Amino acid sequence: MGPGQRMLTAMRAEAPGQADAALQVADTRSQPGPGGSTSSSSGVLCQVLGCSTFTSSVSSAAERVSAILWQEEAGDRRCPLLFVQLNELLSSPAGLEWRETARWIKFEEKVEDGGERWSAPHVTALPLHSLFELRMCLQKGTVLLDLDAHNFKEIIRKAKNLSEPSAQLSETPLKEQLKNQFKKKLPPGAEVASVLIGEVDFLEKPFITFIRLKEMVVLGALTEVALPSRFLFILLGPRAKAKAYHEIGRAMATLLTDELFQRVAQQAEHQEDLIAGIDEFLDELTVLPPGKWDPSARIPPPNCLPSAHKRISTHLREWKSPCNRNMAAAEDRPGPGQPHFSEELERTGRLFGGLLRDIRRKAPWYRSDFSDALHIQCLSAVLYIYLATVTNAITFGGMLGDATANMQGVLESFLGTAFAGSIFCLFGGQPLTILSSTGPVLVFERLLFSFSEDYSLDYLEFRLWIGLWVAFFGLVLVATEASYLVQYFTRFTEEGFCALISLIFIYDSMKKMVSLADTYPINWHYRTDDVTLYTCICNLSSPGNVSAWNNTLLPLPVTLQERPEAVIVARLSRSQCLDQGGHLLGTSCHYVPDVTLMSFLLFGGTFLCSTMIKRFKTTRYFPMVLRKLVSDFSIILTILIFCAIDAVLGLETPKLLVPSELKPTNPARGWIISPFGANPWWVCLLSVVPAILVTILIFMDQQITAVILNRREYKLQKGAGFHLDLFCVSLLMIVTSMTGLPWYVSATVISLAHMESLKKESTMSAPGEQSKFLGIREQRLTGLVVFILTGVSVFMAPILKYIPMPVLYGVFLHMGVVALNSIQFTERVRLLLMPAKHQPDLTYLRHVPLRRVHLFTFIQVLCLVVLWVLKSTAAAIIFPVMLLALVGIRKGLECIFSLNDLSWLDSIMPETARREAEEKLPRKLEKEGSDSEESELMHRQGPAINISVN
Amino acid sequence: MGPGQRMLTAMRAEAPGQADAALQVADTRSQPGPGGSTSSSSGVLCQVLGCSTFTSSVSSAAERVSAILWQEEAGDRRCPLLFVQLNELLSSPAGLEWRETARWIKFEEKVEDGGERWSAPHVTALPLHSLFELRMCLQKGTVLLDLDAHNFKEIIRKAKNLSEPSAQLSETPLKEQLKNQFKKKLPPGAEVASVLIGEVDFLEKPFITFIRLKEMVVLGALTEVALPSRFLFILLGPRAKAKAYHEIGRAMATLLTDELFQRVAQQAEHQEDLIAGIDEFLDELTVLPPGKWDPSARIPPPNCLPSAHKRISTHLREWKSPCNRNMAAAEDRPGPGQPHFSEELERTGRLFGGLLRDIRRKAPWYRSDFSDALHIQCLSAVLYIYLATVTNAITFGGMLGDATANMQGVLESFLGTAFAGSIFCLFGGQPLTILSSTGPVLVFERLLFSFSEDYSLDYLEFRLWIGLWVAFFGLVLVATEASYLVQYFTRFTEEGFCALISLIFIYDSMKKMVSLADTYPINWHYRTDDVTLYTCICNLSSPGNVSAWNNTLLPLPVTLQERPEAVIVARLSRSQCLDQGGHLLGTSCHYVPDVTLMSFLLFGGTFLCSTMIKRFKTTRYFPMVLRKLVSDFSIILTILIFCAIDAVLGLETPKLLVPSELKPTNPARGWIISPFGANPWWVCLLSVVPAILVTILIFMDQQITAVILNRREYKLQKGAGFHLDLFCVSLLMIVTSMTGLPWYVSATVISLAHMESLKKESTMSAPGEQSKFLGIREQRLTGLVVFILTGVSVFMAPILKYIPMPVLYGVFLHMGVVALNSIQFTERVRLLLMPAKHQPDLTYLRHVPLRRVHLFTFIQVLCLVVLWVLKSTAAAIIFPVMLLALVGIRKGLECIFSLNDLSWLDSIMPETARREAEEKLPRKLEKEGSDSEESELMHRQGPAINISVN
Repeated sequence: MGPGQRMLTAMRAEAPGQADAALQVADTRSQPGPGGSTSSSSGVLCQVLGCSTFTSSVSSAAERVSAILWQEEAGDRRCPLLFVQLNELLSSPAGLEWRETARWIKFEEKVEDGGERWSAPHVTALPLHSLFELRMCLQKGTVLLDLDAHNFKEIIRKAKNLSEPSAQLSETPLKEQLKNQFKKKLPPGAEVASVLIGEVDFLEKPFITFIRLKEMVVLGALTEVALPSRFLFILLGPRAKAKAYHEIGRAMATLLTDELFQRVAQQAEHQEDLIAGIDEFLDELTVLPPGKWDPSARIPPPNCLPSAHKRISTHLREWKSPCNRNMAAAEDRPGPGQPHFSEELERTGRLFGGLLRDIRRKAPWYRSDFSDALHIQCLSAVLYIYLATVTNAITFGGMLGDATANMQGVLESFLGTAFAGSIFCLFGGQPLTILSSTGPVLVFERLLFSFSEDYSLDYLEFRLWIGLWVAFFGLVLVATEASYLVQYFTRFTEEGFCALISLIFIYDSMKKMVSLADTYPINWHYRTDDVTLYTCICNLSSPGNVSAWNNTLLPLPVTLQERPEAVIVARLSRSQCLDQGGHLLGTSCHYVPDVTLMSFLLFGGTFLCSTMIKRFKTTRYFPMVLRKLVSDFSIILTILIFCAIDAVLGLETPKLLVPSELKPTNPARGWIISPFGANPWWVCLLSVVPAILVTILIFMDQQITAVILNRREYKLQKGAGFHLDLFCVSLLMIVTSMTGLPWYVSATVISLAHMESLKKESTMSAPGEQSKFLGIREQRLTGLVVFILTGVSVFMAPILKYIPMPVLYGVFLHMGVVALNSIQFTERVRLLLMPAKHQPDLTYLRHVPLRRVHLFTFIQVLCLVVLWVLKSTAAAIIFPVMLLALVGIRKGLECIFSLNDLSWLDSIMPETARREAEEKLPRKLEKEGSDSEESELMHRQGPAINISVN
Repeated sequence: MGPGQRMLTAMRAEAPGQADAALQVADTRSQPGPGGSTSSSSGVLCQVLGCSTFTSSVSSAAERVSAILWQEEAGDRRCPLLFVQLNELLSSPAGLEWRETARWIKFEEKVEDGGERWSAPHVTALPLHSLFELRMCLQKGTVLLDLDAHNFKEIIRKAKNLSEPSAQLSETPLKEQLKNQFKKKLPPGAEVASVLIGEVDFLEKPFITFIRLKEMVVLGALTEVALPSRFLFILLGPRAKAKAYHEIGRAMATLLTDELFQRVAQQAEHQEDLIAGIDEFLDELTVLPPGKWDPSARIPPPNCLPSAHKRISTHLREWKSPCNRNMAAAEDRPGPGQPHFSEELERTGRLFGGLLRDIRRKAPWYRSDFSDALHIQCLSAVLYIYLATVTNAITFGGMLGDATANMQGVLESFLGTAFAGSIFCLFGGQPLTILSSTGPVLVFERLLFSFSEDYSLDYLEFRLWIGLWVAFFGLVLVATEASYLVQYFTRFTEEGFCALISLIFIYDSMKKMVSLADTYPINWHYRTDDVTLYTCICNLSSPGNVSAWNNTLLPLPVTLQERPEAVIVARLSRSQCLDQGGHLLGTSCHYVPDVTLMSFLLFGGTFLCSTMIKRFKTTRYFPMVLRKLVSDFSIILTILIFCAIDAVLGLETPKLLVPSELKPTNPARGWIISPFGANPWWVCLLSVVPAILVTILIFMDQQITAVILNRREYKLQKGAGFHLDLFCVSLLMIVTSMTGLPWYVSATVISLAHMESLKKESTMSAPGEQSKFLGIREQRLTGLVVFILTGVSVFMAPILKYIPMPVLYGVFLHMGVVALNSIQFTERVRLLLMPAKHQPDLTYLRHVPLRRVHLFTFIQVLCLVVLWVLKSTAAAIIFPVMLLALVGIRKGLECIFSLNDLSWLDSIMPETARREAEEKLPRKLEKEGSDSEESELMHRQGPAINISVN
């Protein structure tokens, strides 16, 4: 039994009885004749037309409305939210009764046939006809403003100047009303407006009244929720027009949901004010031609709406300067190319001025950085990011170990991650950042190690000096407020970098899976029939005997089959055999059955399953709360599911192996690196050269990620801290260099995943309104816990060893794909494959010629290819410089693309924006049609939030 | 360079120069003053209102329009398709020039900023304001009807009563126009209507003209396509109103796309006629309230549109009986519960009357049944269905072989399928049907065989008699026209049956995959380290020695490892070993590595890939033609891809094995079964009892499938042939019984897949219009070729042996899932999982209370469960009776559900429908609002076509 039904039951009150009686006597006041008095509609079209193109005067309606709004503005009266309800007088076995047939907050919800179901909220589509009829109704009906009545009975009596109360309407709210779930949707202070429509036998002329009560009255059982009412519209008429009355009622209800009309109705002093209000409403209608649109189709509520505020302020401004609204609207429109950092990146001109500002900005939030973390979502985030971090630590640890002969290994990676990460989360400017070893740094370490080997330098000592220099340069950059340069990292640079990192994630997870096939080779030529011929035996004999052994293992000709041969088999396991100096001989020694294929099944399964569970949120199944919960925990659920599958099947798939002892991976090194001793003294000066490269690398890597994380779309409340971030990273460089731990900077993909798992969305909204993205749970706790757990993981090996690596690679693939899909670049690459006519209606496509869009995409792809090639070859050492070059290329694009194109495809670089702003201003004012561009800007911002999308 | 750009280049003609000059001199004829003459708008609202609820008279506008339409109807003048084009006068470096900025056939396409791109087609959303302004324009501007002019110059001159031709407009179509691709979209006989809008410096008052030419004129470079024009609307006005002019132009263009207005404009004799036309247009507008809808959002064209015909005929009828349109519309509305077979299932009352009618109906199509097959789509269908049929033949053949000790085996299955299928395709009533062994028949054969075994009867002879009796009963059913009973197979029965068969498909493919794991067991406890301990050796010794052998194979304690043991190994392959009487000993003998997991990868991959390729059609990538082609061949492509993957990897996965010799599978039987000899004589009489059951089974199985295939949604042109189908099946029973081949009836899932792969869709449609489902390529050739190929397959074994079985099971899973997803039942089951407010806006949910929908679904689920259980247990013998019971249950539902509910959820049974039709008629006329229900009916039919969906 839905809320609707409860309501309907509640409304079987005695009101109709009263109305029956009350209306028997004809109203003497204001019923116009049926066909007559069209004289009053003279000049109506002129009024309806409002401000015509062909006449320069403002219509009287617009003038009147503006005057009303002006009064209101002066009086500073607030307009409460109106819940509008359409009641119809329907015949039932128990006589006539009022039934709710539709309701509105913003959008219409209709009671479906059968009366047990609310339709989905939809945009009200009305026949224009019914609005005209409504206008006529308001013109010819009674309008009672500030009526002094305290219950429905009194209202009816006063409306009809009668006193014949025959039946009672219960005036205390019914139990059903108080229990109504729907009330929760309404903010405090909301009011009800009732539209009452019905056809009755005894009337020959319609009875039409619009009532505004002096004092708000709770109408008892007449309304769905027990809230006070101020507005009532009553239309009772003769039989056989029910459909028409219904449409007029809907029109009235829709009119009442309009904020502009609400204000007019609140302030109206005469019937004419209301007419002016409806005329203004008519003037702003959007119409759909007949035959091109099925009027019974229900239009789902749009994602973003033009703000009512704009319309109202337009009216107010119009009052001051009539017929000038286009220009007025253009003025306060934020330019699309406006740079998106303001206060955070202003230069103070003082040493460490930016850093001090950052600290001053972040300090007041510090307490809330911990208290804001008390939400179930944070638990999910911690688990998800913890697993990602651990996997990352193992992956990079392993690769670093390979690259540096275990000078830095998995254990160092764990400790370094835990230490650097938790320090950063405690003191960093943007605590949502997750620190990690990154690809570019790894490449540099590899080159450094081989250089040290070649010139017989002590790697760790050399590295220490480089680290110290980098930290020094870093501090210099902080002191000189160099981070303000991140303003030059426009979408172009961000996306190039983000795409590169995402592709590395995807590529690496794939590569790891393929390398599993090397670790666990499959015997592709296995024949079931030859099962007896596949063996692997342990040969303990001396190497001299091998030739003899080999003989016996060759498949024998058929003629020899009859004579069983004698072979000597040592019944040892593989490891025992190898330990005892034996070696393995046979056709099956190098193969491991099933493990690789099982790994691929787990990998694919994890990827598909996590993607599907993530998408589950946008399906229609199960209540929203459950879906959101499942979707929030999608990664954890997937990992658990596939760990369980793996455990049940019991195959020996490669598992996550966490080091469990606290000692350096390479026994040749200690925990503290001495700065002198092993290398000649000039090495510490020589280190400046590589240090410059590393500084560029760290700066770019760190700050591009920071720019991405601090995007305006995320609606971060606590502000960024670019200087503070860099300061922390620099200090951490010193510590990690001295202890021989890996270097850490912000990791784009994991940080994005972290933010995504902390998205806040509005819960209370009018039915049909999209839940709004409210921001991110900005706090330091999730990160901190993640890194503490990472440190503790060294002792959690017994639990973690059940997680198969393919599952984690699947999660990595998922993360890479999500990050890649979230950038506009990917969207534009997809456009390359679509014929123009099938392309989606993207805002920049409306404004930038397709050729230019494709050229822009093509240049980005080219940059990406160059970066990829650089990263994979020996030239990787100049990779950081290439990142800087991206900014230069972006600057160069200004020669190829018009600023208009760039403003749609990218953001404008700061000084260009400033210059343009000065030049463009007059042009902007000249430009017409900014009204629509205004709403397009909203569109544009809409999808950009997608970066943190499912 | 898109078509738009070419057009724009083409239009840089000299027209503006002329206009410039021509308009310098003020028009003397009909420019009204700016603010004055509002007197003429007196009574406008009254006109606009049309037929008001509160007055019973018809408005003058409606009256006038009806009169015009009435004239037209009498004159029988056809209205050609209008291509409407909006040209604006824009300033360019080369001076003013006309540029096309939007175009309409049904929906609007706009030239985007930058002028190089057409927007996606969308429903035109206009500000109501601009329509009012347009009305004023038409009222105050010049209207020239039947102007006699032959080029643009002359038109302008005559319109302005001037003769000052200063510039030339090229009058021969430009090269670009002739090459224009867009022209292909226009049907022959289409006309262009141009709306010309511009702002010029020299005018102080707007110049407004609506022109209808006496003779159509090709306007040369002014129009995008070189087609003749009849209508022109010109609006030139003073500067600074470009936006408003643009909106008026759009409004005019939209008005011209309206079929009703087109007719009015064709027939109009006075300016007032046009005004009446626009008033009627206004009266039928749908409006969206401001603030609830973003006017710049583009509404994609809806899937189905209200027909213009209806609107026009309403007007015509109104002319006869004013203000009665609701009732009028209700009359010719087809009831939702109307039974969907008409002529095919009427009883003639004569013996074999239905059969003769079927033959008479199908005969004229016979030639086209072959010529209609000449389409590439048929090739795809043949390959797809061929593979499905062969797989089915193998699957059922294998299972029949199991059930009947190879009395009927795979070879019999192949031959039978090929023979029965091709005969049916040649002579059957519905040649799209694919015959196959079906599950229920298989169950019966199994029971029959074990009964024969138990009572020592000759199975094949017994079966022959049953077959003969079934054929006899079948012929009796044909003679008595019993197939008319299929009218009782409503959606309820169809869906129950179809769901059951689909589930069997899904279940069987899964079961087959799981059974692979038994055939190729995986050693789940394999340890890489123990590779040396896994062996399998051939033991040729006598059984007495086994115990000694076993000893040596037990894992030895560690203390013994040092002493290598001597074992005797026979180097034979598994089959050689077994041939020589040896047996296999060892820990790896029973395991087959990798094959099972590989099979699962292939299975899952095939299913996902085929589903994805199928969906590719609805993506935006690549041109529609390519997408459609790929989607049509999705199954074949998938099979090829995965066969290739399998072949490259080279693992010994189970492959499709086709028998290659033409002899009975069981050597104990011949090709002809003798009717007497093996069994006692009374067996041929006893056979009547099982024959009755089989008859019911065959009748139900055959006819439910036939009903599903002949649904009205498929828009079959050549009609059904229920009697002929049954006749063919009965005759085939005789032949297959006598030759000991399996029995065949229509296979639901494969037949549906067959029809789906033969779907025709309209190609030429206005931009934005959905391509319509036109029907099925009804022909006999695809089926015939499929079955001939099946027969020939016996010789194609060398090619077919590369197809892995898991790939075919994946295809089966896909087919089952597609069939299951295509029925409303599945949709309703999904509703069970959705909270009411998230449910999609389905038509039956608008009309039937949710509880009732759920109850209906629940009853269906219950029936399905009962059927499933019956099918799987020994009670399977009464399965056919249970199918009949479904019809009874459906009849019983009439007690639980109201007829209204049933009419939405199901169709009404024939005699109920007849009874209701009589009773309901007055009620129907009473009912209001059938206009909207009419369009809902269209909605309802829309998704029903989904049965043959991607």
